[in-house]
Amino acid sequence: MGPHPAVAAIRLAVRRVLHDVLNELSRDSAAGAAAAPAPPGPTPPDGGTAPPGGSRADARPAAARPAGEPPLVLVACSGGADSMALASALAFEAPKLAIRAGAITVDHGLQPGSDLRAAEVAARLGALRLDPVEAVAVTVGREGGPEAAARDARYAALDEAAERLGAAAVLLGHTRDDQAETVLLGLARGSGIRSLSGMAAVSGSAGRYRRPFLHLDRQTARTACLVQSLPVWDDPMNADPAYTRSRLRHEGLPALEKSLGKGVVEALARTAQLCRDDADALDRWAAEADATVRDEAGLLECAKLYALPPAVRRRVLRRAAIAEGAPAGSLFARHIEELDRLITGWRGQGAINLPGRVVARRQGGRLVIRQG
Amino acid sequence: MGPHPAVAAIRLAVRRVLHDVLNELSRDSAAGAAAAPAPPGPTPPDGGTAPPGGSRADARPAAARPAGEPPLVLVACSGGADSMALASALAFEAPKLAIRAGAITVDHGLQPGSDLRAAEVAARLGALRLDPVEAVAVTVGREGGPEAAARDARYAALDEAAERLGAAAVLLGHTRDDQAETVLLGLARGSGIRSLSGMAAVSGSAGRYRRPFLHLDRQTARTACLVQSLPVWDDPMNADPAYTRSRLRHEGLPALEKSLGKGVVEALARTAQLCRDDADALDRWAAEADATVRDEAGLLECAKLYALPPAVRRRVLRRAAIAEGAPAGSLFARHIEELDRLITGWRGQGAINLPGRVVARRQGGRLVIRQG
Repeated sequence: MGPHPAVAAIRLAVRRVLHDVLNELSRDSAAGAAAAPAPPGPTPPDGGTAPPGGSRADARPAAARPAGEPPLVLVACSGGADSMALASALAFEAPKLAIRAGAITVDHGLQPGSDLRAAEVAARLGALRLDPVEAVAVTVGREGGPEAAARDARYAALDEAAERLGAAAVLLGHTRDDQAETVLLGLARGSGIRSLSGMAAVSGSAGRYRRPFLHLDRQTARTACLVQSLPVWDDPMNADPAYTRSRLRHEGLPALEKSLGKGVVEALARTAQLCRDDADALDRWAAEADATVRDEAGLLECAKLYALPPAVRRRVLRRAAIAEGAPAGSLFARHIEELDRLITGWRGQGAINLPGRVVARRQGGRLVIRQG
Repeated sequence: MGPHPAVAAIRLAVRRVLHDVLNELSRDSAAGAAAAPAPPGPTPPDGGTAPPGGSRADARPAAARPAGEPPLVLVACSGGADSMALASALAFEAPKLAIRAGAITVDHGLQPGSDLRAAEVAARLGALRLDPVEAVAVTVGREGGPEAAARDARYAALDEAAERLGAAAVLLGHTRDDQAETVLLGLARGSGIRSLSGMAAVSGSAGRYRRPFLHLDRQTARTACLVQSLPVWDDPMNADPAYTRSRLRHEGLPALEKSLGKGVVEALARTAQLCRDDADALDRWAAEADATVRDEAGLLECAKLYALPPAVRRRVLRRAAIAEGAPAGSLFARHIEELDRLITGWRGQGAINLPGRVVARRQGGRLVIRQG
């Protein structure tokens, strides 16, 4: 008798990602052996096993591991059902592929006794025979709100641990339900398809982070923990209505499912993938168009910008503002619209102030964007 | 003292659209006078007053009106607050621009006494000094569900009336709230950014239909009716939880606003416009790419398809399937994904059946799509 279907599903998802990681490691080491010294810049395209749309990073850093030692894959685990299921699947699959499996749990220090909690999670991870297991304490700042600040601190700690331990990859337990919530959060920003793209299956420096459960639902992970008798911890933040994501999870998304039918989560996840591919293609177009709309001095020519499709023109304008120092995260759709009106609705308007002290003006048929 | 802000807002929205209609009429008649006989095919691009993304149609049909007679603009009016506000603004603005203003109300025959209701709405429209005013009875079929069937019957009646009366445009009362609902309905399909584009400001044959209120909220229309003492009729269908849109309006969207904040409707409407422009740009790319990926016999070459960005490749495949007879409305994301795997995941799989008895297979490095 095989494992419970939920356990089979989480293991399969992890096995696929581990195969990807091994394939990329062997390709990289073959490339390294073939040409010494290794050429700088992006590695060549890889024949299509990367996720479509180029979210995989270009180059893999030299893992700090001696030749011959098996590669290390880490799981980031909060102790909740999703990441405990992920840890259990990694612990089961990694040895069969001669991969070492370790785990990191991050203590955000946001609740009293969180250090004890982290130590308990670490003990549970050790009981799964993961090794090394680390509980890392972080200090959460305030920038960007409580959720963003906690996330920034968490990823900084994971990055540090991955580099110090020479990990080939860090697995994250985000499920299809998390993805659906992320798409709705992006929708609320109203800033276009990039923010509807949700989370990538592969992200971070050199494709470090992998999300094996992005196509699995949360219930599968919970069931897998239950049937494996894994103790799980429900983070009270996940149910705290002070947090937007929590309100969305417990009120917004269920109400939307009630109105639109049960397929909403799946539809949102599919939308994320389609939007990611579309955004990648349009970014590519904008990058190519950029070179064709500049004069000899490198200034943007308004007449040539005007002739571009609006979707491409707005992306060229956004790139130009960022290149001059406007911070991407502070550049909203309304900024780009105002910039675009210098091209499409020209009636002699004055200079436009953008975030990061960047100023844009139209002068003699050119768009001049400079940091002031 | 000027009018109430809500009344000023609805009048401004209508005035802008009437100006657009007049500009297009004078351009078309100038083009007609300059070259006789008029050249077939699309009119030249128009200098940017058309809504971005090319949703404006290419050619305007000869309006059935004698030279010198003022143009006629119709409003489609259910008697609800949105379209009654629209009718009142049209009645106010049209005479100032020497435009005749008329109205059509459609009796869907779905409730007992709907004919009396339609006659009452027509009388209210006549009281606004709209002329002509027609109440048109239609028979609603069953195809595509009750909402789609009612919509099809309604637009057929409006098309017929517009052509018979020689109308230059038909105004529709859809608001930003309707747009937000349409985006969420599209999201639930999970079929990509075209279905997130909502309704166009200009649509239909030759840009017949115009939606002046697409950037106004429903409350503004309601307020405008109230302060003008216009009687309005609330269609019970709008509150009937048997209808998806009604559930969304009364439950789904309010819950989403409660989770994500009050800006959700605006964010959804902005998302619609951004997605429309993006979808138009990618469709254009796919149309151009199509010619570059075919061999001398006109067959799609798999290697060339493979080299396209996934977002473009999927659109090329979709176009090809539709060109061979697959009905666009039955062609879902999963069909295109399966087709795409003949290119990106080739392992000798057999022929793929698509809607409309269209069959796709890979043969000798070519993708052969034919109606069986």
